[in-house]
Amino acid sequence: MGTLTIRGGRVLCPDMTVERADVLIDTDSATIESVDDPDEIENGDESLDASDGLVIPGLVNAHTHVAMTLFRGYADDKELDAWLQEDIWPVEAELQAGDVTAGTKLGIAEMIRSGTTAFADMYFFMPQVAEAVEETGVRALLGHGCITVGKDEDAAHEEFEEGLGFAREYDGRGDGRVRTMFTPHSLTTVGKEFYEEYVPRARKEGIPIHIHANETDNEVDPIVEERGKRPLEYAEELGLLADDSFIAHGVYVDARERELLAEHGTAVIHCPASNMKLASGIAPVQAMLDEGVQVGLGTDGAASNNDLDMFDEMRDAAMVGKLAADDASAVPARAVVRMATQGSANALGFDSGRIEAGANADVAVVDLDQPHLTPRHDLVSHLAYAVKGSDVRHTVCDGEVLMADRELLTMDEKAVKRAASEHAEALVDRARN
Amino acid sequence: MGTLTIRGGRVLCPDMTVERADVLIDTDSATIESVDDPDEIENGDESLDASDGLVIPGLVNAHTHVAMTLFRGYADDKELDAWLQEDIWPVEAELQAGDVTAGTKLGIAEMIRSGTTAFADMYFFMPQVAEAVEETGVRALLGHGCITVGKDEDAAHEEFEEGLGFAREYDGRGDGRVRTMFTPHSLTTVGKEFYEEYVPRARKEGIPIHIHANETDNEVDPIVEERGKRPLEYAEELGLLADDSFIAHGVYVDARERELLAEHGTAVIHCPASNMKLASGIAPVQAMLDEGVQVGLGTDGAASNNDLDMFDEMRDAAMVGKLAADDASAVPARAVVRMATQGSANALGFDSGRIEAGANADVAVVDLDQPHLTPRHDLVSHLAYAVKGSDVRHTVCDGEVLMADRELLTMDEKAVKRAASEHAEALVDRARN
Repeated sequence: MGTLTIRGGRVLCPDMTVERADVLIDTDSATIESVDDPDEIENGDESLDASDGLVIPGLVNAHTHVAMTLFRGYADDKELDAWLQEDIWPVEAELQAGDVTAGTKLGIAEMIRSGTTAFADMYFFMPQVAEAVEETGVRALLGHGCITVGKDEDAAHEEFEEGLGFAREYDGRGDGRVRTMFTPHSLTTVGKEFYEEYVPRARKEGIPIHIHANETDNEVDPIVEERGKRPLEYAEELGLLADDSFIAHGVYVDARERELLAEHGTAVIHCPASNMKLASGIAPVQAMLDEGVQVGLGTDGAASNNDLDMFDEMRDAAMVGKLAADDASAVPARAVVRMATQGSANALGFDSGRIEAGANADVAVVDLDQPHLTPRHDLVSHLAYAVKGSDVRHTVCDGEVLMADRELLTMDEKAVKRAASEHAEALVDRARN
Repeated sequence: MGTLTIRGGRVLCPDMTVERADVLIDTDSATIESVDDPDEIENGDESLDASDGLVIPGLVNAHTHVAMTLFRGYADDKELDAWLQEDIWPVEAELQAGDVTAGTKLGIAEMIRSGTTAFADMYFFMPQVAEAVEETGVRALLGHGCITVGKDEDAAHEEFEEGLGFAREYDGRGDGRVRTMFTPHSLTTVGKEFYEEYVPRARKEGIPIHIHANETDNEVDPIVEERGKRPLEYAEELGLLADDSFIAHGVYVDARERELLAEHGTAVIHCPASNMKLASGIAPVQAMLDEGVQVGLGTDGAASNNDLDMFDEMRDAAMVGKLAADDASAVPARAVVRMATQGSANALGFDSGRIEAGANADVAVVDLDQPHLTPRHDLVSHLAYAVKGSDVRHTVCDGEVLMADRELLTMDEKAVKRAASEHAEALVDRARN
């Protein structure tokens, strides 16, 4: 077999302990072969130096709209509805396939740089996204975002067929690094009859489902009013809750809804930065964890964040989780690190998020030799509160080295930045003219 | 005169616009000589390349306890009282002068790296802090933290005399980069008779005063109960409110207290990360700004943050400010950038925080050539939401280059990290034995 060793570092183990160990990767099967004493690990065909480093599972960004990197900083500090209607939707209406390629590659560069090896993306022009994933070596779960409001019935059907068609056609590409999902946008932006028609079809084909849910009270109230039940009760009725399904946000979920999530094994992807920036509210994360709800972590799009850095997101989750719970012991460091690794990976159905023999070889190495990571009383605390995306030195996905010594190996970073700038500028020009 | 030019970049102007300009620094007077078209600026004796960069005022960390870097990650995820009593105070009781030197240098290294050129520090062994400031080239306002609770009267008097003596003796050192203040710890940890004795003495000597105030409701309630007035009404009575005084936190300040702060020109130093992490609450920042209260920004100590990175703090302030105000337009990007620069500098009485002829030559250059800073719709948005401390390329304080191309020039960074690690380890050992 081909092998890659990661030598000389400490390893974050699945139980959130840290030990000195080397990691041996089988690059043929793209899995971790062993994690052991340096003396027990043979030299690989290739090796990465992890001295003064912490080897962690590649982080999993479980809810984002990657190509929205093009809108980073385009419109901030506005209420969600005004922001969408006045700023975001007009530029999104002008999106072309090439824009999505450019924005997605930019986002992937940013994620690889900050130790994220996998993501879930719900957006448009998804074949372009799949191609960018194939080409750059990351892992992703991709879905075409389907909306019915504002569309006639034929157009809506066409969009749903496109969504299912994409999921069917692209699943498994890139040696299995591309997986697909069915992604109706939300409970309020998709008509009931469409859920009734398409959810059973997706289920029958074994396609996982991902929606936005319970993000703002503006979204919860109309459902309660119209249907006399909470949004996730409605979601259950539609067959949307299952253990291969997951919802983004889950800010306003009451005790009964948390019970439903736990019962069905449906994960919630917590997006604290976006929820703060849009003043949506904060999900009751500690309550969810206590009640057995699976929780992953995501950045949401860069327009409401404004980055795709999962270290920021862990810090945000731990910080604001305490504030929201009025309890400084809530959402501790270990919980957020687990969310960003195993929690997100499990939600997406990826066999990653942990450094353990048999798991996918998705790994990042954090350079600990930094003033802001000194001293080292507790490295898991550092991951949650002090490590920055820029501290990531190497990134490996599916056994392939995507970044070594902070240099991207599968992308021409300069060209990616230039293309994204040009596409963003042209897009804004089109939207304004 | 000796000169330093910063060439080829864009400049953040005091009105929060951005223009292409070069900056000429007079290194003799340590002030900015001019900010102008590249063609109008002569070559300096020295120059820094700011191409693809944004030249910003050096950030001002207006409330911190720098040497607490030694306790970074030592104890997290605990309630404030338990955290102080079980974890922080036992190790602080073992602090020695050499520990403070080591921890302070580590914190200064971290701040220079992340573009902070000045800070306000309230801690112990302040002569050591002053020496570290002198040696490393940064600017600081320093005070010996004075507490009376748990001390007999003689010991308390001794501490207050030490506080005033330090302020008197060290003011103006390091070519004026060291300024001093009188820093009674808080309204609940210092007896009224001590305020009555020492505040007039400090005022008479023109020494600015800085205290913690209104951080938690545990701190507000006893004052209201005992004195029948709000904490800042009590502070006014004690003569603590003045335009050269400033308070840290100000989480629980009602409308009358905000009025007092605005009337007296007493600034509030907002510490959002610490307030989130300790579940203290969030200051009504937008209300303060609307009502004319001066607001600066600080990281607090690294034990409750866990870093000294003012870019994190700006992002936190903008993010959680919206959540707390239930308004996505609250605490916008421009407001937090102003807080971290002019707001903090004005609070501390420093003639910095703005890039303008005549101001102190305290400057940082942000490298914009990063995936997470692409595209560039709005550079002020980037400063608030997307720039990381690690994007800072050069740091200049008082006309001296402290970091060039990410290399620290006034410190042996390796030795600083090693010393801090050793001191932190020995300190924890002493506290546990």
